[in-house]
Amino acid sequence: MIGAGNVAVHLSRAIQDKGNPVVQVYSRSETSAASLAGMLGAGYTTSLQELRRDAQLYIIALSDDAIPEILPALPLTEQLTVHTAGSIPMSIFEGKMHNYGVLYPLQSFSKKHPVDLSNIPVFLEANTPANLKTLQSIAGTIFSGVYELTSEKRLLLHVAAVFASNFTNSLYDIAAQLSEKAGLNFDLLKPLVMETARKAVASGSPAQVQTGPAKRNDRNVLHKHAELLAAWPQWKQLYLQLSENIKKT
Amino acid sequence: MIGAGNVAVHLSRAIQDKGNPVVQVYSRSETSAASLAGMLGAGYTTSLQELRRDAQLYIIALSDDAIPEILPALPLTEQLTVHTAGSIPMSIFEGKMHNYGVLYPLQSFSKKHPVDLSNIPVFLEANTPANLKTLQSIAGTIFSGVYELTSEKRLLLHVAAVFASNFTNSLYDIAAQLSEKAGLNFDLLKPLVMETARKAVASGSPAQVQTGPAKRNDRNVLHKHAELLAAWPQWKQLYLQLSENIKKT
Repeated sequence: MIGAGNVAVHLSRAIQDKGNPVVQVYSRSETSAASLAGMLGAGYTTSLQELRRDAQLYIIALSDDAIPEILPALPLTEQLTVHTAGSIPMSIFEGKMHNYGVLYPLQSFSKKHPVDLSNIPVFLEANTPANLKTLQSIAGTIFSGVYELTSEKRLLLHVAAVFASNFTNSLYDIAAQLSEKAGLNFDLLKPLVMETARKAVASGSPAQVQTGPAKRNDRNVLHKHAELLAAWPQWKQLYLQLSENIKKT
Repeated sequence: MIGAGNVAVHLSRAIQDKGNPVVQVYSRSETSAASLAGMLGAGYTTSLQELRRDAQLYIIALSDDAIPEILPALPLTEQLTVHTAGSIPMSIFEGKMHNYGVLYPLQSFSKKHPVDLSNIPVFLEANTPANLKTLQSIAGTIFSGVYELTSEKRLLLHVAAVFASNFTNSLYDIAAQLSEKAGLNFDLLKPLVMETARKAVASGSPAQVQTGPAKRNDRNVLHKHAELLAAWPQWKQLYLQLSENIKKT
Protein backbone atom coordinates (compact mmCIF):
# COMPACT_ATOMS: atom_id res chain seq x y z
CA MET A 1 0.00 0.00 0.00
CA ILE A 2 1.65 3.19 -1.17
CA GLY A 3 0.14 5.95 0.95
CA ALA A 4 -1.29 6.01 4.46
CA GLY A 5 -4.04 8.64 4.15
CA ASN A 6 -7.82 8.19 4.24
CA VAL A 7 -8.19 6.07 1.12
CA ALA A 8 -5.15 3.96 2.01
CA VAL A 9 -6.45 3.25 5.52
CA HIS A 10 -9.96 2.24 4.45
CA LEU A 11 -8.78 0.25 1.47
CA SER A 12 -6.00 -1.58 3.33
CA ARG A 13 -8.30 -2.69 6.09
CA ALA A 14 -10.99 -3.88 3.68
CA ILE A 15 -8.47 -5.73 1.51
CA GLN A 16 -6.95 -7.46 4.49
CA ASP A 17 -10.36 -8.26 6.02
CA LYS A 18 -11.23 -10.10 2.82
CA GLY A 19 -8.21 -12.39 3.15
CA ASN A 20 -5.65 -10.50 1.08
CA PRO A 21 -2.82 -9.63 3.50
CA VAL A 22 -1.30 -6.18 3.11
CA VAL A 23 2.41 -6.91 3.43
CA GLN A 24 3.92 -3.42 3.52
CA VAL A 25 2.91 0.22 3.85
CA TYR A 26 4.87 3.09 2.33
CA SER A 27 4.45 6.72 3.37
CA ARG A 28 6.79 9.71 3.40
CA SER A 29 5.56 10.27 6.94
CA GLU A 30 6.93 7.65 9.33
CA THR A 31 4.11 8.34 11.81
CA SER A 32 1.44 7.62 9.20
CA ALA A 33 3.23 4.59 7.79
CA ALA A 34 3.82 3.09 11.24
CA SER A 35 0.25 3.79 12.34
CA LEU A 36 -1.37 2.06 9.37
CA ALA A 37 1.18 -0.77 9.38
CA GLY A 38 0.49 -1.26 13.09
CA MET A 39 -3.25 -1.58 12.45
CA LEU A 40 -2.57 -4.19 9.77
CA GLY A 41 0.32 -6.07 11.35
CA ALA A 42 2.30 -5.21 8.19
CA GLY A 43 5.79 -3.92 7.59
CA TYR A 44 6.38 -0.32 6.66
CA THR A 45 8.97 1.92 5.04
CA THR A 46 9.50 5.59 4.28
CA SER A 47 11.94 4.81 1.47
CA LEU A 48 10.71 3.84 -1.97
CA GLN A 49 13.96 1.95 -2.51
CA GLU A 50 12.95 -0.37 0.31
CA LEU A 51 9.63 -1.34 -1.25
CA ARG A 52 9.18 -5.10 -1.36
CA ARG A 53 9.23 -6.36 -4.93
CA ASP A 54 7.15 -9.51 -4.36
CA ALA A 55 3.64 -8.17 -3.80
CA GLN A 56 0.76 -9.26 -6.04
CA LEU A 57 -0.52 -5.70 -6.30
CA TYR A 58 0.82 -2.20 -5.56
CA ILE A 59 -1.86 0.38 -4.76
CA ILE A 60 -0.89 4.03 -4.99
CA ALA A 61 -3.51 5.62 -2.72
CA LEU A 62 -2.22 9.17 -2.82
CA SER A 63 -3.79 12.50 -3.72
CA ASP A 64 -4.04 13.36 -7.42
CA ASP A 65 -1.24 15.87 -6.91
CA ALA A 66 1.19 13.40 -5.37
CA ILE A 67 0.86 10.61 -7.94
CA PRO A 68 2.83 12.19 -10.81
CA GLU A 69 5.51 13.18 -8.31
CA ILE A 70 6.05 9.70 -6.91
CA LEU A 71 5.90 7.72 -10.16
CA PRO A 72 9.43 8.42 -11.46
CA ALA A 73 10.87 7.29 -8.12
CA LEU A 74 9.01 3.96 -7.94
CA PRO A 75 11.44 1.02 -8.35
CA LEU A 76 8.78 -1.10 -10.05
CA THR A 77 8.46 -2.12 -13.68
CA GLU A 78 6.86 -5.59 -13.96
CA GLN A 79 4.71 -5.51 -10.81
CA LEU A 80 0.99 -4.79 -11.21
CA THR A 81 0.50 -1.22 -10.00
CA VAL A 82 -2.70 0.83 -9.77
CA HIS A 83 -3.70 4.26 -8.58
CA THR A 84 -7.05 5.17 -7.01
CA ALA A 85 -7.55 8.68 -8.40
CA GLY A 86 -10.67 9.78 -10.26
CA SER A 87 -9.03 12.44 -12.40
CA ILE A 88 -5.70 10.89 -13.38
CA PRO A 89 -5.76 8.90 -16.62
CA MET A 90 -4.32 5.41 -16.68
CA SER A 91 -1.87 6.61 -19.34
CA ILE A 92 0.23 8.22 -16.62
CA PHE A 93 1.83 4.77 -16.18
CA GLU A 94 2.70 4.42 -19.89
CA GLY A 95 6.36 3.92 -20.67
CA LYS A 96 7.15 3.54 -16.98
CA MET A 97 5.47 0.21 -16.10
CA HIS A 98 4.41 -2.90 -17.96
CA ASN A 99 1.45 -3.89 -15.81
CA TYR A 100 -0.84 -1.22 -14.53
CA GLY A 101 -4.35 0.01 -14.02
CA VAL A 102 -6.75 2.07 -11.94
CA LEU A 103 -8.96 1.09 -9.01
CA TYR A 104 -11.34 3.99 -8.25
CA PRO A 105 -13.72 3.48 -5.32
CA LEU A 106 -16.68 5.87 -5.55
CA GLN A 107 -16.79 7.13 -2.01
CA SER A 108 -15.54 10.04 0.06
CA PHE A 109 -13.32 8.81 2.87
CA SER A 110 -12.62 10.51 6.20
CA LYS A 111 -10.24 9.06 8.72
CA LYS A 112 -12.63 9.22 11.66
CA HIS A 113 -15.66 7.85 9.90
CA PRO A 114 -15.72 4.07 9.20
CA VAL A 115 -17.01 3.16 5.75
CA ASP A 116 -18.37 -0.20 4.68
CA LEU A 117 -16.77 -0.75 1.27
CA SER A 118 -19.08 -3.70 0.63
CA ASN A 119 -21.83 -1.13 -0.04
CA ILE A 120 -19.94 0.90 -2.62
CA PRO A 121 -19.01 0.40 -6.26
CA VAL A 122 -15.49 0.41 -7.68
CA PHE A 123 -14.40 1.33 -11.20
CA LEU A 124 -11.48 -0.50 -12.80
CA GLU A 125 -9.22 0.00 -15.76
CA ALA A 126 -6.18 -2.06 -16.75
CA ASN A 127 -3.65 -2.13 -19.56
CA THR A 128 -4.23 -5.82 -20.38
CA PRO A 129 -7.15 -8.25 -20.05
CA ALA A 130 -5.06 -10.38 -17.66
CA ASN A 131 -4.40 -7.42 -15.36
CA LEU A 132 -8.07 -6.46 -15.48
CA LYS A 133 -8.93 -10.01 -14.40
CA THR A 134 -6.54 -9.83 -11.44
CA LEU A 135 -8.05 -6.50 -10.33
CA GLN A 136 -11.58 -7.83 -10.78
CA SER A 137 -10.89 -10.87 -8.65
CA ILE A 138 -9.44 -8.79 -5.80
CA ALA A 139 -12.02 -5.97 -6.03
CA GLY A 140 -14.92 -8.41 -6.32
CA THR A 141 -14.37 -9.60 -2.76
CA ILE A 142 -14.32 -6.04 -1.35
CA PHE A 143 -16.85 -3.86 -3.16
CA SER A 144 -20.56 -4.13 -3.89
CA GLY A 145 -20.08 -3.82 -7.62
CA VAL A 146 -17.10 -3.89 -9.96
CA TYR A 147 -17.28 -1.92 -13.21
CA GLU A 148 -14.83 -1.38 -16.03
CA LEU A 149 -14.53 2.30 -16.96
CA THR A 150 -12.22 4.24 -19.28
CA SER A 151 -10.13 7.13 -17.98
CA GLU A 152 -12.28 9.59 -19.90
CA LYS A 153 -15.51 8.38 -18.34
CA ARG A 154 -13.90 8.11 -14.93
CA LEU A 155 -13.14 11.84 -15.10
CA LEU A 156 -16.85 12.51 -15.78
CA LEU A 157 -17.80 10.28 -12.88
CA HIS A 158 -15.36 12.11 -10.62
CA VAL A 159 -16.96 15.46 -11.51
CA ALA A 160 -20.38 13.92 -10.84
CA ALA A 161 -19.13 12.76 -7.44
CA VAL A 162 -17.83 16.26 -6.64
CA PHE A 163 -21.36 17.61 -7.27
CA ALA A 164 -23.07 14.79 -5.36
CA SER A 165 -20.76 14.90 -2.38
CA ASN A 166 -18.25 17.76 -1.98
CA PHE A 167 -20.56 20.48 -3.27
CA THR A 168 -23.56 19.06 -1.45
CA ASN A 169 -21.61 19.21 1.79
CA SER A 170 -20.64 22.82 1.07
CA LEU A 171 -24.36 23.65 0.75
CA TYR A 172 -24.97 21.99 4.12
CA ASP A 173 -22.29 24.31 5.45
CA ILE A 174 -23.97 27.42 4.02
CA ALA A 175 -27.26 26.21 5.52
CA ALA A 176 -25.53 25.70 8.88
CA GLN A 177 -24.13 29.23 8.80
CA LEU A 178 -27.50 30.74 7.81
CA SER A 179 -29.32 28.88 10.54
CA GLU A 180 -26.74 30.09 13.04
CA LYS A 181 -27.52 33.63 11.94
CA ALA A 182 -31.12 32.85 12.90
CA GLY A 183 -29.84 31.72 16.29
CA LEU A 184 -30.50 28.07 15.47
CA ASN A 185 -28.27 25.04 15.60
CA PHE A 186 -27.53 23.00 12.46
CA ASP A 187 -28.95 20.02 14.39
CA LEU A 188 -32.42 21.32 13.57
CA LEU A 189 -31.70 20.96 9.84
CA LYS A 190 -30.45 17.40 10.10
CA PRO A 191 -33.84 15.69 9.57
CA LEU A 192 -34.27 17.76 6.40
CA VAL A 193 -30.78 16.85 5.17
CA MET A 194 -31.36 13.12 5.70
CA GLU A 195 -34.86 13.19 4.21
CA THR A 196 -33.63 15.03 1.11
CA ALA A 197 -30.93 12.42 0.51
CA ARG A 198 -33.31 9.53 1.22
CA LYS A 199 -35.93 10.92 -1.13
CA ALA A 200 -33.46 11.35 -3.99
CA VAL A 201 -32.15 7.83 -3.43
CA ALA A 202 -35.67 6.37 -3.32
CA SER A 203 -36.65 8.23 -6.50
CA GLY A 204 -36.14 7.17 -10.08
CA SER A 205 -34.18 10.38 -10.58
CA PRO A 206 -33.54 13.46 -8.41
CA ALA A 207 -35.28 15.69 -10.99
CA GLN A 208 -38.56 13.91 -10.18
CA VAL A 209 -38.47 14.93 -6.52
CA GLN A 210 -37.22 18.50 -7.01
CA THR A 211 -39.20 20.96 -4.88
CA GLY A 212 -38.79 24.54 -3.68
CA PRO A 213 -39.41 28.10 -4.86
CA ALA A 214 -37.22 27.85 -7.99
CA LYS A 215 -39.01 24.68 -9.11
CA ARG A 216 -42.41 26.40 -8.60
CA ASN A 217 -40.96 29.59 -10.09
CA ASP A 218 -42.33 31.42 -7.05
CA ARG A 219 -41.03 34.90 -7.88
CA ASN A 220 -42.06 36.49 -4.59
CA VAL A 221 -40.11 34.02 -2.52
CA LEU A 222 -37.12 34.04 -4.87
CA HIS A 223 -37.05 37.81 -4.65
CA LYS A 224 -37.30 37.87 -0.84
CA HIS A 225 -34.51 35.34 -0.51
CA ALA A 226 -32.23 37.22 -2.88
CA GLU A 227 -32.86 40.43 -0.97
CA LEU A 228 -32.06 38.76 2.34
CA LEU A 229 -28.83 37.34 0.90
CA ALA A 230 -27.65 40.75 -0.30
CA ALA A 231 -25.51 40.88 2.86
CA TRP A 232 -23.56 37.80 1.68
CA PRO A 233 -22.86 38.38 -2.04
CA GLN A 234 -21.23 35.00 -2.64
CA TRP A 235 -24.21 33.12 -1.24
CA LYS A 236 -26.58 35.37 -3.14
CA GLN A 237 -24.80 34.62 -6.39
CA LEU A 238 -24.96 30.88 -5.66
CA TYR A 239 -28.63 31.21 -4.74
CA LEU A 240 -29.43 32.91 -8.05
CA GLN A 241 -27.40 30.49 -10.12
CA LEU A 242 -28.68 27.35 -8.46
CA SER A 243 -32.25 28.67 -8.81
CA GLU A 244 -31.61 29.45 -12.48
CA ASN A 245 -30.29 25.92 -13.00
CA ILE A 246 -33.42 24.42 -11.42
CA LYS A 247 -35.69 26.61 -13.56
CA LYS A 248 -33.89 25.58 -16.74
CA THR A 249 -34.00 21.90 -15.81
CA MET B 1 -57.42 22.58 6.88
CA ILE B 2 -57.22 25.20 4.16
CA GLY B 3 -55.38 23.55 1.30
CA ALA B 4 -55.06 19.96 0.15
CA GLY B 5 -51.53 19.86 -1.26
CA ASN B 6 -48.45 18.10 0.10
CA VAL B 7 -48.11 20.05 3.35
CA ALA B 8 -51.86 19.89 4.00
CA VAL B 9 -51.97 16.12 3.51
CA HIS B 10 -49.02 15.32 5.76
CA LEU B 11 -50.03 17.80 8.42
CA SER B 12 -53.72 16.79 8.49
CA ARG B 13 -52.92 13.14 8.90
CA ALA B 14 -50.39 13.78 11.66
CA ILE B 15 -52.72 16.14 13.51
CA GLN B 16 -55.57 13.68 13.37
CA ASP B 17 -53.34 10.74 14.31
CA LYS B 18 -52.46 12.61 17.49
CA GLY B 19 -56.09 12.88 18.54
CA ASN B 20 -57.01 16.28 17.07
CA PRO B 21 -59.79 15.60 14.56
CA VAL B 22 -59.62 17.56 11.30
CA VAL B 23 -63.24 18.58 10.79
CA GLN B 24 -63.16 20.13 7.33
CA VAL B 25 -60.91 20.50 4.31
CA TYR B 26 -61.05 23.43 1.92
CA SER B 27 -59.51 23.42 -1.54
CA ARG B 28 -60.37 25.20 -4.78
CA SER B 29 -60.03 21.81 -6.42
CA GLU B 30 -62.92 19.52 -5.51
CA THR B 31 -60.89 16.43 -6.38
CA SER B 32 -58.12 17.41 -3.95
CA ALA B 33 -60.54 18.47 -1.21
CA ALA B 34 -62.58 15.29 -1.51
CA SER B 35 -59.49 13.09 -1.63
CA LEU B 36 -57.95 14.50 1.56
CA ALA B 37 -61.34 14.70 3.33
CA GLY B 38 -61.95 11.06 2.39
CA MET B 39 -58.63 10.02 3.95
CA LEU B 40 -59.54 11.85 7.13
CA GLY B 41 -63.25 11.12 7.31
CA ALA B 42 -63.77 14.88 7.38
CA GLY B 43 -66.15 17.21 5.56
CA TYR B 44 -64.93 19.32 2.67
CA THR B 45 -65.84 22.41 0.70
CA THR B 46 -64.63 24.35 -2.30
CA SER B 47 -66.30 27.54 -1.11
CA LEU B 48 -64.65 29.75 1.50
CA GLN B 49 -68.09 30.99 2.50
CA GLU B 50 -68.95 27.44 3.60
CA LEU B 51 -66.01 27.18 5.98
CA ARG B 52 -67.10 25.99 9.40
CA ARG B 53 -66.67 28.72 11.97
CA ASP B 54 -66.27 26.48 15.03
CA ALA B 55 -62.82 24.96 14.59
CA GLN B 56 -60.14 25.42 17.25
CA LEU B 57 -57.51 26.16 14.61
CA TYR B 58 -57.47 27.08 10.91
CA ILE B 59 -54.33 26.05 9.06
CA ILE B 60 -53.61 27.71 5.73
CA ALA B 61 -51.33 25.14 4.11
CA LEU B 62 -50.98 26.78 0.72
CA SER B 63 -48.02 27.89 -1.38
CA ASP B 64 -46.44 31.24 -0.51
CA ASP B 65 -48.00 32.66 -3.67
CA ALA B 66 -51.54 31.61 -2.81
CA ILE B 67 -51.67 32.88 0.77
CA PRO B 68 -51.98 36.63 0.07
CA GLU B 69 -54.60 35.84 -2.55
CA ILE B 70 -56.85 33.84 -0.26
CA LEU B 71 -56.64 36.02 2.85
CA PRO B 72 -59.08 38.78 1.82
CA ALA B 73 -61.70 36.15 1.04
CA LEU B 74 -61.46 34.28 4.35
CA PRO B 75 -64.66 34.75 6.42
CA LEU B 76 -62.72 34.52 9.70
CA THR B 77 -61.85 37.26 12.19
CA GLU B 78 -61.78 35.84 15.73
CA GLN B 79 -60.76 32.25 14.94
CA LEU B 80 -57.11 31.30 15.48
CA THR B 81 -55.57 31.08 12.00
CA VAL B 82 -52.01 30.18 10.99
CA HIS B 83 -50.09 29.75 7.78
CA THR B 84 -47.25 27.29 7.23
CA ALA B 85 -45.01 29.31 4.91
CA GLY B 86 -41.33 29.97 5.57
CA SER B 87 -41.10 33.26 3.74
CA ILE B 88 -44.36 35.03 4.58
CA PRO B 89 -44.23 37.22 7.67
CA MET B 90 -46.88 36.84 10.35
CA SER B 91 -47.79 40.48 9.77
CA ILE B 92 -49.71 39.44 6.67
CA PHE B 93 -52.63 38.73 9.05
CA GLU B 94 -52.51 42.19 10.66
CA GLY B 95 -55.70 44.23 10.45
CA LYS B 96 -57.52 41.22 9.00
CA MET B 97 -57.65 38.82 11.98
CA HIS B 98 -57.47 39.09 15.74
CA ASN B 99 -55.89 35.73 16.51
CA TYR B 100 -53.17 34.46 14.26
CA GLY B 101 -49.74 32.96 13.93
CA VAL B 102 -47.39 30.78 11.91
CA LEU B 103 -46.67 27.07 12.12
CA TYR B 104 -43.63 26.29 9.94
CA PRO B 105 -42.57 22.62 9.79
CA LEU B 106 -38.95 22.31 8.61
CA GLN B 107 -39.33 19.58 6.06
CA SER B 108 -39.80 19.13 2.33
CA PHE B 109 -43.00 17.24 1.63
CA SER B 110 -43.86 15.13 -1.41
CA LYS B 111 -47.21 13.48 -1.84
CA LYS B 112 -45.84 10.03 -2.61
CA HIS B 113 -43.26 9.92 0.13
CA PRO B 114 -44.55 9.40 3.70
CA VAL B 115 -42.84 11.61 6.31
CA ASP B 116 -42.72 11.00 10.04
CA LEU B 117 -43.40 14.45 11.52
CA SER B 118 -42.40 13.19 14.95
CA ASN B 119 -38.78 13.41 13.74
CA ILE B 120 -38.91 17.00 12.55
CA PRO B 121 -38.93 20.38 14.27
CA VAL B 122 -41.61 23.04 13.93
CA PHE B 123 -41.22 26.81 14.30
CA LEU B 124 -44.06 28.84 15.76
CA GLU B 125 -45.02 32.47 15.98
CA ALA B 126 -48.25 33.96 17.36
CA ASN B 127 -49.70 37.40 17.94
CA THR B 128 -50.45 36.81 21.62
CA PRO B 129 -48.97 34.61 24.39
CA ALA B 130 -52.31 32.78 24.67
CA ASN B 131 -52.33 31.93 20.96
CA LEU B 132 -48.71 30.81 21.17
CA LYS B 133 -49.67 28.49 24.02
CA THR B 134 -52.49 26.94 21.98
CA LEU B 135 -50.16 26.36 19.04
CA GLN B 136 -47.49 24.92 21.33
CA SER B 137 -49.88 22.45 22.87
CA ILE B 138 -51.10 21.19 19.49
CA ALA B 139 -47.66 21.16 17.83
CA GLY B 140 -46.05 19.52 20.85
CA THR B 141 -47.97 16.31 20.22
CA ILE B 142 -46.97 16.15 16.55
CA PHE B 143 -43.38 17.34 16.09
CA SER B 144 -40.04 16.36 17.61
CA GLY B 145 -39.31 19.89 18.79
CA VAL B 146 -41.30 23.11 19.03
CA TYR B 147 -39.47 26.43 18.74
CA GLU B 148 -40.61 30.02 18.79
CA LEU B 149 -39.15 32.03 15.92
CA THR B 150 -39.75 35.54 14.58
CA SER B 151 -40.78 36.11 10.96
CA GLU B 152 -37.38 37.62 10.21
CA LYS B 153 -35.48 34.60 11.49
CA ARG B 154 -37.92 32.21 9.85
CA LEU B 155 -37.05 33.76 6.49
CA LEU B 156 -33.35 33.07 7.19
CA LEU B 157 -34.20 29.51 8.17
CA HIS B 158 -36.22 29.07 4.98
CA VAL B 159 -33.24 30.19 2.89
CA ALA B 160 -31.04 27.77 4.87
CA ALA B 161 -33.54 24.99 4.09
CA VAL B 162 -33.47 25.85 0.38
CA PHE B 163 -29.68 25.36 0.42
CA ALA B 164 -29.84 22.19 2.52
CA SER B 165 -32.63 20.57 0.55
CA ASN B 166 -33.78 22.08 -2.78
CA PHE B 167 -30.30 23.06 -3.96
CA THR B 168 -28.75 19.86 -2.68
CA ASN B 169 -31.28 17.89 -4.70
CA SER B 170 -30.46 19.96 -7.78
CA LEU B 171 -26.79 18.98 -7.37
CA TYR B 172 -27.83 15.32 -7.18
CA ASP B 173 -29.59 15.93 -10.47
CA ILE B 174 -26.48 17.41 -12.10
CA ALA B 175 -24.51 14.42 -10.79
CA ALA B 176 -27.12 12.07 -12.23
CA GLN B 177 -26.89 13.74 -15.63
CA LEU B 178 -23.08 13.67 -15.62
CA SER B 179 -22.97 10.01 -14.66
CA GLU B 180 -25.41 9.25 -17.47
CA LYS B 181 -22.99 10.93 -19.86
CA ALA B 182 -20.42 8.41 -18.61
CA GLY B 183 -22.92 5.65 -19.41
CA LEU B 184 -23.58 5.04 -15.71
CA ASN B 185 -26.81 4.92 -13.76
CA PHE B 186 -27.42 7.35 -10.86
CA ASP B 187 -27.92 4.23 -8.71
CA LEU B 188 -24.14 3.91 -8.55
CA LEU B 189 -23.91 7.34 -6.86
CA LYS B 190 -26.52 6.57 -4.22
CA PRO B 191 -24.12 5.16 -1.61
CA LEU B 192 -22.04 8.35 -1.95
CA VAL B 193 -25.13 10.56 -1.59
CA MET B 194 -26.28 8.77 1.57
CA GLU B 195 -22.79 8.66 3.08
CA THR B 196 -22.28 12.39 2.46
CA ALA B 197 -25.53 13.22 4.24
CA ARG B 198 -24.82 10.80 7.08
CA LYS B 199 -21.32 12.17 7.58
CA ALA B 200 -22.53 15.79 7.75
CA VAL B 201 -25.25 14.81 10.20
CA ALA B 202 -22.81 12.85 12.38
CA SER B 203 -20.35 15.75 12.37
CA GLY B 204 -20.25 18.75 14.65
CA SER B 205 -20.51 20.91 11.54
CA PRO B 206 -20.40 20.21 7.79
CA ALA B 207 -17.29 22.38 7.42
CA GLN B 208 -15.37 19.85 9.51
CA VAL B 209 -16.03 17.02 7.07
CA GLN B 210 -15.54 18.98 3.83
CA THR B 211 -13.38 17.06 1.35
CA GLY B 212 -12.60 17.23 -2.36
CA PRO B 213 -10.32 19.04 -4.80
CA ALA B 214 -11.48 22.57 -3.86
CA LYS B 215 -10.89 21.88 -0.16
CA ARG B 216 -7.38 20.58 -0.95
CA ASN B 217 -6.93 23.39 -3.48
CA ASP B 218 -5.82 20.74 -5.96
CA ARG B 219 -5.32 23.01 -8.97
CA ASN B 220 -4.66 20.21 -11.45
CA VAL B 221 -7.93 18.47 -10.71
CA LEU B 222 -9.91 21.73 -10.56
CA HIS B 223 -8.49 22.68 -13.94
CA LYS B 224 -9.25 19.29 -15.52
CA HIS B 225 -12.84 19.38 -14.23
CA ALA B 226 -13.44 22.91 -15.47
CA GLU B 227 -12.09 21.93 -18.89
CA LEU B 228 -14.36 18.91 -19.04
CA LEU B 229 -17.37 21.04 -18.09
CA ALA B 230 -16.69 23.57 -20.86
CA ALA B 231 -19.36 21.73 -22.87
CA TRP B 232 -21.98 22.64 -20.24
CA PRO B 233 -21.37 26.31 -19.38
CA GLN B 234 -24.01 26.50 -16.63
CA TRP B 235 -22.55 23.52 -14.78
CA LYS B 236 -19.05 24.88 -15.31
CA GLN B 237 -20.03 28.20 -13.74
CA LEU B 238 -21.60 26.40 -10.78
CA TYR B 239 -18.50 24.22 -10.45
CA LEU B 240 -16.22 27.25 -10.33
CA GLN B 241 -18.41 29.17 -7.90
CA LEU B 242 -19.01 26.29 -5.54
CA SER B 243 -15.27 25.55 -5.57
CA GLU B 244 -14.52 29.21 -4.87
CA ASN B 245 -16.95 29.16 -1.96
CA ILE B 246 -15.25 26.07 -0.47
CA LYS B 247 -11.80 27.66 -0.87
CA LYS B 248 -12.93 30.84 0.88
CA THR B 249 -14.55 28.90 3.71
